[in-house]
Amino acid sequence: MPAYTQSIEKLIQNLSRLPGIGRRSAERIIDYILNAPASEVKVLSESISKVKESVRLCRICNNLSEQELCAICDDGARQKSIVCIVEKPGDVTALEKSGGYRGTYHVLMGSISPLEGKGPQDLKINGLLSRLKEDNVSEVIIATDADTEGETTAIYLTRLLKPSGVKVSRIGLGIAVGANLEYADSSTLAKAIEWRREI
Amino acid sequence: MPAYTQSIEKLIQNLSRLPGIGRRSAERIIDYILNAPASEVKVLSESISKVKESVRLCRICNNLSEQELCAICDDGARQKSIVCIVEKPGDVTALEKSGGYRGTYHVLMGSISPLEGKGPQDLKINGLLSRLKEDNVSEVIIATDADTEGETTAIYLTRLLKPSGVKVSRIGLGIAVGANLEYADSSTLAKAIEWRREI
Repeated sequence: MPAYTQSIEKLIQNLSRLPGIGRRSAERIIDYILNAPASEVKVLSESISKVKESVRLCRICNNLSEQELCAICDDGARQKSIVCIVEKPGDVTALEKSGGYRGTYHVLMGSISPLEGKGPQDLKINGLLSRLKEDNVSEVIIATDADTEGETTAIYLTRLLKPSGVKVSRIGLGIAVGANLEYADSSTLAKAIEWRREI
Repeated sequence: MPAYTQSIEKLIQNLSRLPGIGRRSAERIIDYILNAPASEVKVLSESISKVKESVRLCRICNNLSEQELCAICDDGARQKSIVCIVEKPGDVTALEKSGGYRGTYHVLMGSISPLEGKGPQDLKINGLLSRLKEDNVSEVIIATDADTEGETTAIYLTRLLKPSGVKVSRIGLGIAVGANLEYADSSTLAKAIEWRREI
């Protein structure tokens, strides 16, 4: 005797594929869905399809967008002369939330990872060099992750971009704001010493 | 500048309403959705609507079903003479998983909770008494929760059903299988002593 009806069992399997959702949490979500107003469930189901159908990558920077250009590339008030290079769209979101940056972005959609067999050819860097010229870019900030892949990618990009004469910088690496020195790992501490700045 | 596109922001809000999903896990799910094959996302979205549209309550026992009768009521091999009364469809699932029960069920769709203003009139008990007669029911097992509401409901049901002459029993209360006496709470221990059985 199956414990659930067919459509519930199917939804449990589909929900369990999502990150962070196991069988137990899928069951709780379905319990919620069965008790929620039909209109709310319709809106949920439709907004899942909507995101998949309407979200694409910005023609200029590869950030997530629902138009040809993302909201940042389309914003005349953003400084086109500074480009911040990140690995994925989520990094743009994180930096935008921090609120301090007024330039534009370039999303690589990946990083160089020899272990996973991903090289420079797997990064979306087409158009980056010509963009530097067209937009008269004065500075490129490399904001890839501080892990091995991110550092490798940063080194690769530095070598690629430097010859064009543009100023290339790397985001600050060191102790997180509010963190205790005592609990920082030794690689971070070593980086923090290396990145010290005269005050 | 909004950090996300409109449809992503909307999906974050809709997903965050689900139990156990916060903003951060909604973001991770959307990241997964954006990278998953379109067909998989379509299946997910459709199976959410499907559950909401097709699942209803069994005409006889109120268990979740996609037909007029649930799979258990529709199964000729189940003993119609024993009815197990539970609070919600999830309890049927739990008992079915345990595998030891071959009778039928009656789902109350709630419990008596004076604190929440829910009395016997909020329980689905219509048809239960006539069913006892029609199906020649010999025993009713009350399997409501072991909390205050469940106990109150059990007492109410006992008073309601006893006069019809049917045998009424309560599921065993006591120490969970595999549990340590040392860590059991005192109400459970008191219950376990009360429910002792000669061996």
